[in-house]
Amino acid sequence: MKFEIIDVDGLGRLGKIRVNNREMTTPNLFPVVHPFNNSVSILELEKIGAQCIFTNSFILYQNENLREKVRKEGIHNHLNFNGIVATDSGAFQQYFYDNQQFSIDSETIEKFQEDIESDFPVILDLPVQINDDYYTAKEKVNLTIKRAKENIVRRKSEKANWIGPIHGGIYTDLLSKSAIEMSKLDFAIYALGGLVKMFLDYRFELPVKMLLTVKKNITPNKPIHMFGLGLPQFFSLAVACGCDLMDSAAYILYAKENRYFTLSTGTKNLNELEEFPCNCPICSNYTPNDLKEFDKDLRIKLLAKHNLYVSFSELKTIRQSIREGNLWELVEQRVRCHPNLVNALRMIKDDRSFFEKYEKVYKNHGRLYSSEESLYRPLIFRYHKKLINTYRVPKEVLYLLILPELDLKGKNSPSIINWLNKLDRNAIINRQEIHIVFSSYIYGIVPIELIDTFPLGQYESIEFNNSNSLLNNNYKLIIEQYFKKNFSKYHKCAILIPDFYLDQYKQKIKFSEHNVINSLKSIISPFYKSNLAVFKEIDSVLNFFKGDE
Amino acid sequence: MKFEIIDVDGLGRLGKIRVNNREMTTPNLFPVVHPFNNSVSILELEKIGAQCIFTNSFILYQNENLREKVRKEGIHNHLNFNGIVATDSGAFQQYFYDNQQFSIDSETIEKFQEDIESDFPVILDLPVQINDDYYTAKEKVNLTIKRAKENIVRRKSEKANWIGPIHGGIYTDLLSKSAIEMSKLDFAIYALGGLVKMFLDYRFELPVKMLLTVKKNITPNKPIHMFGLGLPQFFSLAVACGCDLMDSAAYILYAKENRYFTLSTGTKNLNELEEFPCNCPICSNYTPNDLKEFDKDLRIKLLAKHNLYVSFSELKTIRQSIREGNLWELVEQRVRCHPNLVNALRMIKDDRSFFEKYEKVYKNHGRLYSSEESLYRPLIFRYHKKLINTYRVPKEVLYLLILPELDLKGKNSPSIINWLNKLDRNAIINRQEIHIVFSSYIYGIVPIELIDTFPLGQYESIEFNNSNSLLNNNYKLIIEQYFKKNFSKYHKCAILIPDFYLDQYKQKIKFSEHNVINSLKSIISPFYKSNLAVFKEIDSVLNFFKGDE
Repeated sequence: MKFEIIDVDGLGRLGKIRVNNREMTTPNLFPVVHPFNNSVSILELEKIGAQCIFTNSFILYQNENLREKVRKEGIHNHLNFNGIVATDSGAFQQYFYDNQQFSIDSETIEKFQEDIESDFPVILDLPVQINDDYYTAKEKVNLTIKRAKENIVRRKSEKANWIGPIHGGIYTDLLSKSAIEMSKLDFAIYALGGLVKMFLDYRFELPVKMLLTVKKNITPNKPIHMFGLGLPQFFSLAVACGCDLMDSAAYILYAKENRYFTLSTGTKNLNELEEFPCNCPICSNYTPNDLKEFDKDLRIKLLAKHNLYVSFSELKTIRQSIREGNLWELVEQRVRCHPNLVNALRMIKDDRSFFEKYEKVYKNHGRLYSSEESLYRPLIFRYHKKLINTYRVPKEVLYLLILPELDLKGKNSPSIINWLNKLDRNAIINRQEIHIVFSSYIYGIVPIELIDTFPLGQYESIEFNNSNSLLNNNYKLIIEQYFKKNFSKYHKCAILIPDFYLDQYKQKIKFSEHNVINSLKSIISPFYKSNLAVFKEIDSVLNFFKGDE
Repeated sequence: MKFEIIDVDGLGRLGKIRVNNREMTTPNLFPVVHPFNNSVSILELEKIGAQCIFTNSFILYQNENLREKVRKEGIHNHLNFNGIVATDSGAFQQYFYDNQQFSIDSETIEKFQEDIESDFPVILDLPVQINDDYYTAKEKVNLTIKRAKENIVRRKSEKANWIGPIHGGIYTDLLSKSAIEMSKLDFAIYALGGLVKMFLDYRFELPVKMLLTVKKNITPNKPIHMFGLGLPQFFSLAVACGCDLMDSAAYILYAKENRYFTLSTGTKNLNELEEFPCNCPICSNYTPNDLKEFDKDLRIKLLAKHNLYVSFSELKTIRQSIREGNLWELVEQRVRCHPNLVNALRMIKDDRSFFEKYEKVYKNHGRLYSSEESLYRPLIFRYHKKLINTYRVPKEVLYLLILPELDLKGKNSPSIINWLNKLDRNAIINRQEIHIVFSSYIYGIVPIELIDTFPLGQYESIEFNNSNSLLNNNYKLIIEQYFKKNFSKYHKCAILIPDFYLDQYKQKIKFSEHNVINSLKSIISPFYKSNLAVFKEIDSVLNFFKGDE
């Protein structure tokens, strides 16, 4: 298997997987299919856009009529599918139905998966479940690692690219151990398991936390799979946190309960729909009433197809967002589907420095900050880090002038141009001795010589005001750090807070009393005695600086 | 014309318009078509889902070959369209191209629109533009009203259902006057104009403010139209603020600039797309590369069709949201497309009491509060109003016990059941003398006897904490008002703040120190002297109450 990473955003990776002369894009979804009994046919799946499918080798193995047939013809011929086929080993069934009928040994089912030429077979793991106590979870993790090692010794087929399951459930230390130990073993894909119950309960914080724990401990050059992830409203957040692949039967399981996927206000019940809000071939050709009147099998099939169309559409949206560097913007929109998704997104706050490592240096477009959660973006964290750790104040400066950031940044703002012109033409202070920085809601301090660099100069944001405590804390912290490091460079510091300014439409606008710059004096006053003051006009600033000499 | 309102949510109205034996649903979009030269044919528009179209009677009138022909056959036959046809009068062209060639008099163009049997003709108005000074705007408003009155006298055809334009631009008093005066005159539809420049500049706050000003002053039984609204990411907010109808050529104008509508991360340039993230028939049949290679006319046509598919899909989503009572949930998601949309949504805060009047009493589903802006929902405002104005504390109570609201509300929470059981079985205080209320992030105070009523008992919310100032202000205000009115009903007041509680999964969870209940004592202490205390256990509460006697 080859995994080529083409582009990245967040921890999301747009990539290509090539295996056994077959190819697929990442991030991608393996729809789960039954090995011989499907409402949506394999051909239909292919038409809807499936490049890869997941099926169950154990169910096939149990079927004595098919076992030998599929051994001979191979799983691709059996399913009549030209794309990539992954096969599960039955571990999930063993747990989920708690059924001794499902018991099988590793050696048999692994060999069988090689025999049928699965592209991505899975070893017989022991999934840790959310209710497992620590001891049980630990046993399962250790046994899965042991089986993984045994699997490596037993491998015969070069066509089999083994998936290595990672477990640990809610126990972070076990998860880390599982990721570290499995990383040492050669698997094509690492797959996080034990998530299905969490998805069913909409407890999205747990899989996000688990995924991030794994990402921090796993080898970075292999795809990361999430077993059982099929709710499209969670796809973008999962991808942004490092999920490359997922498999699920949700499209068909939900269809069996008459549930219809949407990305706007969540999963709907068919009975509540009077018109289909979607443009997919199913929704274009049928009305909800048509479906209600069809017999059950046809209804399920059509709903399942719609659910798949929505799922693949979302994957295309996500891949396009990675290309454009807009993945966080997409995530911040999608999480509004459910409060638990927002709470899950907020968890990235604790891992900002991890995210920052993988954040792109440059993106083509200006940024849009449309929600409170925008403040968690890794690129903001990176700027703060650079400002404090590597930024150097120009040598020649003696005075600091802090200007407010206006609707247009830097020399795009009519008011800022006016102020700069006054400073350039002034006969009181040597222009080079004045260092101009902007007070920024988002970025804290932006030195004017950086204003045209990404991501500072071009962004649009919702109005944050100084009553927002998260912002205030960020802002206060970065300002304090900046002055702790640099206060001695400036003899005097002036803050300009105008009564009015000219906006991008050249309209005279009252400057907001809620702008964070109003809290600036109290934050930096510990660093200066009488050498700090607030002014409304540039002329007064110059006179204040002049008084120094 | 008949306008039947079937369902409502926010100020949005799901309705049916019947006119001249034709029918359309609201909210709806009139795609603007050229009277004889269209990239997307009328037949194609119908297939995509257009129930109504807007065309320009003035351009038709200018064409001497067609003028008489269309007079004879009628506009529906001329366009070969069976749906509803609205016609503009040329006022927009007159302004937009500032061209004397476009000059025409009211009498002629109004008569012409009647002759060609337009279902919804428009009088020759004078649109106020965003840069007009007050005097110019006032003149235009007055002259439009004067022309509206003259139009009424001149009307001859019963088939013509006139659209009355409302103007005033950014001048609220002029807009109100326009709405009030036009309301007195009999028009089928009232249409707000002068918005196009605002949409082009993404200044969504202005049209929202204008629309709300009009809605507060206009007769409520007629549809409200917005001239020139064609950006689908703004549809849901406009509808929630009372927009029933809109017309636009954006689908084709954007297509001419290679721009492709999406609802997730805004309008894209075709050149930036590597795969189409949409399932519409255009995106299902072509790739971005196909379109780039097609000749210009075909490319524009296909992009325009996609843009229309997205627009109509969004209208279906909006109508479905109105039926389900989820319109605000949808709006709160859509506004993440652009920070200016969020800022525009926030403007509803100032009109909460207006929105509250039209808010439904009951909705079928529990509410989801997924963003900070959820706190502006009219139904929260209504609850606060009712709690303060009409709620009565049960007569027999002597003591108040305030419990925290947990993840599950009321008797669905294991911990709350435990506490209630202890109170029911206690031998210290007569159970009926204890009034239990919940401290709620969102609702302030929820008396236990109301916990199972809509919208209190069943909702899910993001975690707000006591550092959120908007929330804090709301919470503080409602608590203060409650105690101002009711403090004398309670001899003593106890607040229960546990160290731990059991969540819905029966897991023991540390109670958050950021929960708003932690600020409760300081808010209500002015109302009680020693008769207020905070406890960790029910037993201590009972002893505290007992000490009274």
